[in-house]
Amino acid sequence: MRLLEERILRDGKVRAGGILKVDAFLNHQMDVELFGELAKAWHEAYKDDNVTKILTIEASGIGLACIAAQEFGCPVLFAKKTKTKNIDGQVYTTRVASYTHGYVYDVIVAKDYLLPTDRVLLIDDFLANGAALEGLCDLVHQAGATLVGAGIAVEKCFQPGGRRLREQGLRIESLARIASMSDDSLVFEN
Amino acid sequence: MRLLEERILRDGKVRAGGILKVDAFLNHQMDVELFGELAKAWHEAYKDDNVTKILTIEASGIGLACIAAQEFGCPVLFAKKTKTKNIDGQVYTTRVASYTHGYVYDVIVAKDYLLPTDRVLLIDDFLANGAALEGLCDLVHQAGATLVGAGIAVEKCFQPGGRRLREQGLRIESLARIASMSDDSLVFEN
Repeated sequence: MRLLEERILRDGKVRAGGILKVDAFLNHQMDVELFGELAKAWHEAYKDDNVTKILTIEASGIGLACIAAQEFGCPVLFAKKTKTKNIDGQVYTTRVASYTHGYVYDVIVAKDYLLPTDRVLLIDDFLANGAALEGLCDLVHQAGATLVGAGIAVEKCFQPGGRRLREQGLRIESLARIASMSDDSLVFEN
Repeated sequence: MRLLEERILRDGKVRAGGILKVDAFLNHQMDVELFGELAKAWHEAYKDDNVTKILTIEASGIGLACIAAQEFGCPVLFAKKTKTKNIDGQVYTTRVASYTHGYVYDVIVAKDYLLPTDRVLLIDDFLANGAALEGLCDLVHQAGATLVGAGIAVEKCFQPGGRRLREQGLRIESLARIASMSDDSLVFEN
């Protein structure tokens, strides 16, 4: 998506270790007008899939998910990161390893809000190693819901997550796909 | 606001210890159509205040803040909870004590995105003891920005936060104001 690519080139910052900072408009300060355009693109891709729920993970996916949900006319459910054990059986739990932060955390959703009848679209800001997105897929499978696909703002195609998840059959619509990145260049895939 | 009060009565659940669970529509599953109505009410209250930025705190304020920002035509900034020390001076930091969870955490925003020229509206889902909202006020003051006021979805008026912050001069527009709450009753203030 041209608009997002241009914004990344203008306001994104490449940091050592393959880090792309987009906190000017995507995941700290949030440009909701831009979010509206991303939402329209995801809706265009998935408008015939009868999406009944958008699932994301806290925190930076929530804004995108809410704006997208307006297009689809459905509610959002956000998975919560927690250290609390699932003691009462009222939540689905999965384990996510954060490569960026170097730790593992549990992610939960209440069973009441993810139903076998749901047709779920996953929304997140980034796809790199795919750990978070894989965790969300697992929650959908546990609920016996239908996984429609994923809408991602920025995919780092030089990291393995997107490829692995597509090979597992997940449909992924990434709006900016970064082929390579270094201190002085950033190349998008066509 | 009648619509929100009715929704709380219909889908909210009162738990022991003064806990009101509204995770069916406000802070786990999120009804973005309802959020649109809350956003309109906050915009009606603050439409003449030239709001340039909406500040909230992760995670459950983010969805409300993004939908509200569409009404105001401004970006959102969300304060991040962190254990990372402010080592490089590029963030404003404040300390928030969570009564609910019984611990203290640091909250940060990047200095780049909160400017002395900003006119800031705070948005959050709950106001009870006021610790989170007070932390957001402190960040705005540190930045030398103008604090326009706060938009809150649910205020527990029987807890001291709202009164204390109003006495300090903060304008607060709460859309559902709970006067008292017990296992079998929930009373709103007029």
